[in-house]
Amino acid sequence: MNQSLLNGEQTTLIALTDRGLQYGDGLFETIALSAGQLTLWSYHIERLNAGCRRLAIPVPDESLLLKEAELLTKGVKQGVVKIIITRGSGGRGYRPPVSAEPNRIVTLHSWPDYPAAWFKTGVVLRLCQTRLGSNPSLAGIKHLNRLEQVLARREWSDPEIAEGLMLDGNGQVIEATQSNLFLLYDGQLVTPDLSCCGVAGTVRRLVMEVAQEQAIPLEISAVTLQQVRQADALFLTNAITGILPVKQFEKVRYDVTSIPTLLIEEVNKHLHR
Amino acid sequence: MNQSLLNGEQTTLIALTDRGLQYGDGLFETIALSAGQLTLWSYHIERLNAGCRRLAIPVPDESLLLKEAELLTKGVKQGVVKIIITRGSGGRGYRPPVSAEPNRIVTLHSWPDYPAAWFKTGVVLRLCQTRLGSNPSLAGIKHLNRLEQVLARREWSDPEIAEGLMLDGNGQVIEATQSNLFLLYDGQLVTPDLSCCGVAGTVRRLVMEVAQEQAIPLEISAVTLQQVRQADALFLTNAITGILPVKQFEKVRYDVTSIPTLLIEEVNKHLHR
Repeated sequence: MNQSLLNGEQTTLIALTDRGLQYGDGLFETIALSAGQLTLWSYHIERLNAGCRRLAIPVPDESLLLKEAELLTKGVKQGVVKIIITRGSGGRGYRPPVSAEPNRIVTLHSWPDYPAAWFKTGVVLRLCQTRLGSNPSLAGIKHLNRLEQVLARREWSDPEIAEGLMLDGNGQVIEATQSNLFLLYDGQLVTPDLSCCGVAGTVRRLVMEVAQEQAIPLEISAVTLQQVRQADALFLTNAITGILPVKQFEKVRYDVTSIPTLLIEEVNKHLHR
Repeated sequence: MNQSLLNGEQTTLIALTDRGLQYGDGLFETIALSAGQLTLWSYHIERLNAGCRRLAIPVPDESLLLKEAELLTKGVKQGVVKIIITRGSGGRGYRPPVSAEPNRIVTLHSWPDYPAAWFKTGVVLRLCQTRLGSNPSLAGIKHLNRLEQVLARREWSDPEIAEGLMLDGNGQVIEATQSNLFLLYDGQLVTPDLSCCGVAGTVRRLVMEVAQEQAIPLEISAVTLQQVRQADALFLTNAITGILPVKQFEKVRYDVTSIPTLLIEEVNKHLHR
């Protein structure tokens, strides 16, 4: 970690009593700094605030977050800004304190070096054994309870495999460990419904909005493994990687050129790529 | 928090990079210090180690943990010792570091003042709206992803209500927010199966073992709300509270005297009460 701020103060430490550590009682955002810009800032803030409301954690002051993110990234062109909001310390056991004093963590990280070929010729996707538990109370938001993703990401170490697809307990396709999934299927874009599990990604939202502008039909629905295998194309979305075309899932190969070029270009424009 | 040790050193702080904070990537135990004894120590260590193996976190050195717990509790008769084991810092995103260096946190807390009447005349139990997501990969162990319990415990503030019952996504009864559930039903003890969600409590294990010694029939099975409502008696188990009889769940009242006295006495003996 290059630099970190806790409630605006430079430090690398936090109280052992913080409920983020004790129970994963908080939320986070991972924001791409690209061409010196904090990309999709408002989308990240909106999801963070929605998460705070869901968990009944006071919504952080956006101007403070922006000030701190700008302080850390001054003169930096490319990097990753991570924000963590926890409920803070206190309370008795699981019961949150009556008036929570949340902790606000802003950190700057170096840009990960993904192979350039991933974005041109596509990536290999595998199927994870670890499933996602369903819970509408926690679905969609980016909370700190991420053991399912940690266990799923542990399943492979082959650097040729970029991502792992995750199913819910019923075998429905939900997302990849750190990305959302889109299918080009039957002439339209399809992305899994996330009302019971999964994280509603910021680039997923951007793709949906750009598709609407470009009059590309898009459906949010339940997705089966069979549909994934039969799709004309697949791509993954993530705040840092943007759009990642999939060239292969298990033994099925896909035509990455069938993903609408105009869609990719417009999304990349918003991501300052 | 009275006192805290991180890897044997007195401190109240931990690195912001710790994966316990970042992802809830770790485990914990809450141990009753009663009559100067660390009760059910071996049960806590066995569950902690099982959790570490499940998450592929190196198992902590039991002798170090015991030494540290004894250091903190020297001369103390009653209190709560909490152990947290996290995977430590590092790794890239969700992917754990190849060789994890776990963090070992041992803290001492004051004994909570539960009303004495709870143990004699029983407690009131409510039904929580927040459900438990099912995931066999995480079921049974006491990991740090506890947002479901936090949200469930937020649902009420009435001090007359001791606990809240939680269901899984299918409406099966699993446990209470911080306790396991036993029913006296149809002449036998019944406790919910925890193979898909829930925490396998240390006092739950003790009750099962004592029941076997005392030839009390006991079944681990799926439990419906209907069964809970029709049970002759209910009780909750928790490392700190031990056995808590239930006098009321929703509008149903139960006869707390029908819980086998010998079972309670024998369990209390093991808990140094």
